[in-house]
Amino acid sequence: MSSNETANFKTVNKRVTKVDALGLSCGKAEFADDISIPNMLHGKILWSPHAHARIKSIDTSAAEKVPGVKAVLTYKNVPAIRHTTAGQGYPEPSPYDSLIFDSKVRFVGDKVAAVAAETLEAATEAVSKIKVEYEILPAVFSITDAMKDGAPVIHDEKDAKNIPDPKHNVCAKFDLDINDGNWFKNADYVFENTYHTQYAQHCALEPHTTLAWLDPNGRLFIRTSTQVPFHVRRIVAQALNIPIKKIRVMKPRIGGGFGSKQEIFLEQVVSALVLATKQPVKIEFTRKEVFISSRTRHPSMTKLKTGVTKDGVITDMDMEIYINNGAYGAHALTVMMCAGSHSLPLYQARNNRFMGRTVYTNLPVAGAYRGYGATQAFFPTECQMDMMAEAIGMDPIEFRLKNYIKQGEGSPIFKAMGEGGEGVEQVITSCGIQKCIEKGLQEFKWSEKKKKYAAQTGTKRRGIGVACSMQGSGIPEVDMASATIKINDDGSFNLNLDATDIGTGSDTVLAQIAAEVLTVPTDKIIVYSSDTDLTPFDVGAYASSTTFISGNAVRKTAMLVRDMIIKVASSILNEKPENLRLENGFAVASDGKKKCSLAEVALSSLYFKHQHQICATASHTAHTSPPPFAAHFAEVEVDTETGELKVLDYVATVDCGTAINPALAEGQNDGAVMNGLSYALCEELEFNSKGAMVNPNFRSYRIFTAHDAPPVRSFLVPTYEPDGPFGAKSVSEIGINGPIPALSNAIYNATGARLFNPPFTPDKILRAIKEKGAKK
Amino acid sequence: MSSNETANFKTVNKRVTKVDALGLSCGKAEFADDISIPNMLHGKILWSPHAHARIKSIDTSAAEKVPGVKAVLTYKNVPAIRHTTAGQGYPEPSPYDSLIFDSKVRFVGDKVAAVAAETLEAATEAVSKIKVEYEILPAVFSITDAMKDGAPVIHDEKDAKNIPDPKHNVCAKFDLDINDGNWFKNADYVFENTYHTQYAQHCALEPHTTLAWLDPNGRLFIRTSTQVPFHVRRIVAQALNIPIKKIRVMKPRIGGGFGSKQEIFLEQVVSALVLATKQPVKIEFTRKEVFISSRTRHPSMTKLKTGVTKDGVITDMDMEIYINNGAYGAHALTVMMCAGSHSLPLYQARNNRFMGRTVYTNLPVAGAYRGYGATQAFFPTECQMDMMAEAIGMDPIEFRLKNYIKQGEGSPIFKAMGEGGEGVEQVITSCGIQKCIEKGLQEFKWSEKKKKYAAQTGTKRRGIGVACSMQGSGIPEVDMASATIKINDDGSFNLNLDATDIGTGSDTVLAQIAAEVLTVPTDKIIVYSSDTDLTPFDVGAYASSTTFISGNAVRKTAMLVRDMIIKVASSILNEKPENLRLENGFAVASDGKKKCSLAEVALSSLYFKHQHQICATASHTAHTSPPPFAAHFAEVEVDTETGELKVLDYVATVDCGTAINPALAEGQNDGAVMNGLSYALCEELEFNSKGAMVNPNFRSYRIFTAHDAPPVRSFLVPTYEPDGPFGAKSVSEIGINGPIPALSNAIYNATGARLFNPPFTPDKILRAIKEKGAKK
Repeated sequence: MSSNETANFKTVNKRVTKVDALGLSCGKAEFADDISIPNMLHGKILWSPHAHARIKSIDTSAAEKVPGVKAVLTYKNVPAIRHTTAGQGYPEPSPYDSLIFDSKVRFVGDKVAAVAAETLEAATEAVSKIKVEYEILPAVFSITDAMKDGAPVIHDEKDAKNIPDPKHNVCAKFDLDINDGNWFKNADYVFENTYHTQYAQHCALEPHTTLAWLDPNGRLFIRTSTQVPFHVRRIVAQALNIPIKKIRVMKPRIGGGFGSKQEIFLEQVVSALVLATKQPVKIEFTRKEVFISSRTRHPSMTKLKTGVTKDGVITDMDMEIYINNGAYGAHALTVMMCAGSHSLPLYQARNNRFMGRTVYTNLPVAGAYRGYGATQAFFPTECQMDMMAEAIGMDPIEFRLKNYIKQGEGSPIFKAMGEGGEGVEQVITSCGIQKCIEKGLQEFKWSEKKKKYAAQTGTKRRGIGVACSMQGSGIPEVDMASATIKINDDGSFNLNLDATDIGTGSDTVLAQIAAEVLTVPTDKIIVYSSDTDLTPFDVGAYASSTTFISGNAVRKTAMLVRDMIIKVASSILNEKPENLRLENGFAVASDGKKKCSLAEVALSSLYFKHQHQICATASHTAHTSPPPFAAHFAEVEVDTETGELKVLDYVATVDCGTAINPALAEGQNDGAVMNGLSYALCEELEFNSKGAMVNPNFRSYRIFTAHDAPPVRSFLVPTYEPDGPFGAKSVSEIGINGPIPALSNAIYNATGARLFNPPFTPDKILRAIKEKGAKK
Repeated sequence: MSSNETANFKTVNKRVTKVDALGLSCGKAEFADDISIPNMLHGKILWSPHAHARIKSIDTSAAEKVPGVKAVLTYKNVPAIRHTTAGQGYPEPSPYDSLIFDSKVRFVGDKVAAVAAETLEAATEAVSKIKVEYEILPAVFSITDAMKDGAPVIHDEKDAKNIPDPKHNVCAKFDLDINDGNWFKNADYVFENTYHTQYAQHCALEPHTTLAWLDPNGRLFIRTSTQVPFHVRRIVAQALNIPIKKIRVMKPRIGGGFGSKQEIFLEQVVSALVLATKQPVKIEFTRKEVFISSRTRHPSMTKLKTGVTKDGVITDMDMEIYINNGAYGAHALTVMMCAGSHSLPLYQARNNRFMGRTVYTNLPVAGAYRGYGATQAFFPTECQMDMMAEAIGMDPIEFRLKNYIKQGEGSPIFKAMGEGGEGVEQVITSCGIQKCIEKGLQEFKWSEKKKKYAAQTGTKRRGIGVACSMQGSGIPEVDMASATIKINDDGSFNLNLDATDIGTGSDTVLAQIAAEVLTVPTDKIIVYSSDTDLTPFDVGAYASSTTFISGNAVRKTAMLVRDMIIKVASSILNEKPENLRLENGFAVASDGKKKCSLAEVALSSLYFKHQHQICATASHTAHTSPPPFAAHFAEVEVDTETGELKVLDYVATVDCGTAINPALAEGQNDGAVMNGLSYALCEELEFNSKGAMVNPNFRSYRIFTAHDAPPVRSFLVPTYEPDGPFGAKSVSEIGINGPIPALSNAIYNATGARLFNPPFTPDKILRAIKEKGAKK
């Protein structure tokens, strides 16, 4: 397959209707909460009201007496087995292994107890009747406070493992210094700034929901809103000390994940309740519970120092990033690493330093969230690009084009950090950044706007900003995917796999890949995902991996099936296999005359001659993580008297290689950009002085609604990634990285005021303008 | 694998607990009727009250007005697509393709219309309000009447296909004559008798039940009590003109099939109701419906003429069999063929003639039933063996031992008829008949009893009888099975397959075969069967095929998985694959020192090194159908004044090759023998002069209960079948063939009266005794 074959795609690169569109559009699709089963109990969790406290005593007797209550679980009566809660890899460099319930609580929203009862009302009442006596401990909420000498130690457990510096609450650290001995000596200009990003929640419309039960043979069946079914199986087994063979995990339709459903914190509680009651148990989080007790984005503080020559060569990049992981830190190392490994290599500097520290605080737990560190790090780098360009009098676009990493190039950062510390020497095998910028400039009318806004008067100032970014496509040498394909009588195929469609459309994308190889329409591919008993292993949906990793697995599998088909067709047509190819659902001889349909092949092989089931399973692991690239262009209008900001135009171009389904890729990009805009402008988890979230609901935690949405325009800029299935790279995360720096740059362009701490609310913008004085 | 390895079996040939034992024993196993789903309608079918009639008019308006009724279907509003109803092969030599509803009815119990309604009560009421005006046609019920010139023609449809002689209602015929030109010329004694076997029903405790619905994406999901999920998919697709890709068929736990759930007559009706209403629909047959409208055993009339020399050589076997198929004839040819191909080759005669005719009558439809023709044919052959032995003054055991087919021998019948007409030249590769007889003689104390009963006086006469038989193990070159096995983190395995456990224990047997290859305990094999989307093709459970055909598929698949495991272990242990073997869940080097567990192999391959899912699919088709052999010994006491018969002892030995699970094999044999005893002594469908069954319930249709059960003793007589998995052959059907001839022979031995027409009820016995006069 080479890039000039892209023109001949039959199914791939087409706007095929989603394979699950009918059910979704008719409201018939079955999500985790849409199923109830006979005899089912409702679970409810008691959350800690304190940010840091020891449980002195816990009295569940009143709760147990509530009619309908079947079980009350606390740290006293569930296994105290430390288990990794994160879903990546096995094992991942997890800084701390959790307990289901502990005798200490570490944030407001930490689990204290759980109840299963015949009704939700009874469960709720029982939870309210659990009497807990706490010894309140001093708490820390900020990164700087947490790292101070003498700070309250959040993880003082004697059996705590892998915490580099528990006394300073440091749960992950990484240091890298690649230099030629001349740090900042060649720079004509040096900039150093500190940037902050805030706490945010994914706000998937579907709250976390788990229903589990014992099947007739006593196996634990977990039907859950997860991104990582096989990891759920592994982690529940570990947490409850059940053999893996006794667990089956099934993923129904999912109403969005964005990383929040990549960690396992609900499934083990529900499973413990099932084991205690021997009855089915369901817990659906309320929105408040999603906010306070699921997972959030890691807030960050980044000190970035960069050097540049007056002719536009970036000499030095020195990034210190401090990440707040909240009370537990499964993703502590990897999110921090990705901040460096994704952002620093985008531009080629001679000297690179990265220092990462992830710290515990007594706040909610940060986990995987679209962007995964890159979002936090591209804010400083892309702002600083603008500052450097301005200092040397170069157009910011020109400056970026001069320094970005080119196809065929590697990076010492890749070499040193890999994608997740695997030591992979990655070379860029496809890079559409220049095309992304060119497409964006043209669509956005950059030059025209730049000229127009060069001189403005009045209180409403307009400005434009740009930001570039890159991401990965899966984690090389960690992520693995498999697929099984079998043929049916009518020449249709079952594609069974554990790649986890969480609303992304991956079932459709993967069906298209199979359909392309097998030369059938996508509706002849019946997709079943994901079920640990019935579908082969896949790490699940995270790290922008599904199209790239699972897609390659599907392509390999389909090619094996194609070969099996050709072999049968060879016997039917009495023609050598090497003279046969598949075309439009037929095996066709090279002379174009002899042919037989896939249905004929299926019937012959299933029922008549050389009887066997044409069926294959194949797996894929990647050795690289080819980055997608993006260029974002923002046009804003700032009311300098009120601080009010309007996004007038937003162009987001993305190089995702071949878009297997352009409609879905655009949808992913639209979604990621809107997610990023909402994060940049209005989203923030806020806490009172005791560490309790004060806005755990959609009235006070604002996210963009359709009404708020600015005019975002997505453009796919095709490249052909040789390691991707039919040239594809990832697309799902990258779009979230652009809005914060693009808007910060545009606000600066409009007002001369630079904002370092999103969300860019009117009061912050106004304050920044006042501090600087209006520009121009 | 050779026979001397049998001693080293770790899991195979062991009395392993059924893998589904827990659910079954706790009443938690989910059968077809145990599931109801939201919005589900109840279906009910209107049955013809006439044996033969044309529908002049049908008025459903009153039925449609019954509150809660959602659909009323008749021949007027469902597709009139002729479809094969039988589940075997594809296509099988089906003499007639059915419609779902026709404008003509052909037996009392034929489908006229179907209703779906919100409650069963409403559906029942609506069915009663369908007004049908019939033109009643003359009907025929007996084989001889049906074949007469001028008989009513049951299938007079213009588009009827493959009916050899519709005017004489002959729906299948086969003629074979292999002779040396000296028919009966070398015989010193010739016997010619006519034997009858009666109508019977399988009486599976679970009635036929189907629940179907449209899944969220509009695919038809059929959860049904079937023996043949893939055939259900194919036949429903054909009957309703739906693409196969739009159908998924799933088999839950099944409460017995015995052949009755091998044909597809309910699924297409329920599916039509689902398509008409767009709602889930369930139909569970009542016991009466099972009797009148599911499937029955084919009644038969056999003329057998045999010749023997005075020194005990069987010279001639001339069998004419006439089979009553009732109104439709999916199994018409194959049951008739099996009657000849299973029974005639058991003893080697020089001249063999077989004439088979299967005819339509206006009675319920006969289908597959344990024994499948062999039961009907071994009655005459085994009675005639005794007559011949008696005539020449030879012990009946000695006579059989002299003439039976030996290992290494073929048969002109095999050659001419194959197993189902495939022209296979089969040679017996394992034959335990002599060992079966020897074991039986010893356990039964034949000689002692023979001596004891040689001279009796009084009204209570005791006698002994013997009967041998053989069966097949699947249908060669027709049956195909596949299996998929994948490894899990803990070194357990998923075994996914469509082999259809209908209560037989095949899930357990197949798990044992996988476990034996993979050297793990059976509880490390998680079995999922059967689901057309998720499990690879298997023809299903019939023709005694599962252990032999599916077992071989599982063994092949496990061997592929074993090779994949060895390859990974080779890398872990740094040892050549050829120096590694699996043992007790470890890959072990030939020096016995280096080893790693299957869990290590799984973890390494899934998460760390050379990442891939160890998973394989393989298929198996057999070229022969190695027969199991059986010898049955019956001891009876007959009250010559009342005709009352008591079975005092019954020894049933069986050579099923290696019994993969001796407990289950004995259970199968016990069940088959008890089934045969019940059939021999009390079961019979009775009809009034209009063709309506008069005893469609368990009060008047008597089957053996635990209380009635005579003391049956099963003994497995091991042989090693080289073509079977670990030496196994079939066991599930053969046991039913013995009771009728063994009891007939024992009654003769006790009383001198020969019975030719089971069931051997007291009145028939008494009549036979009176006709003959008491012996001795």
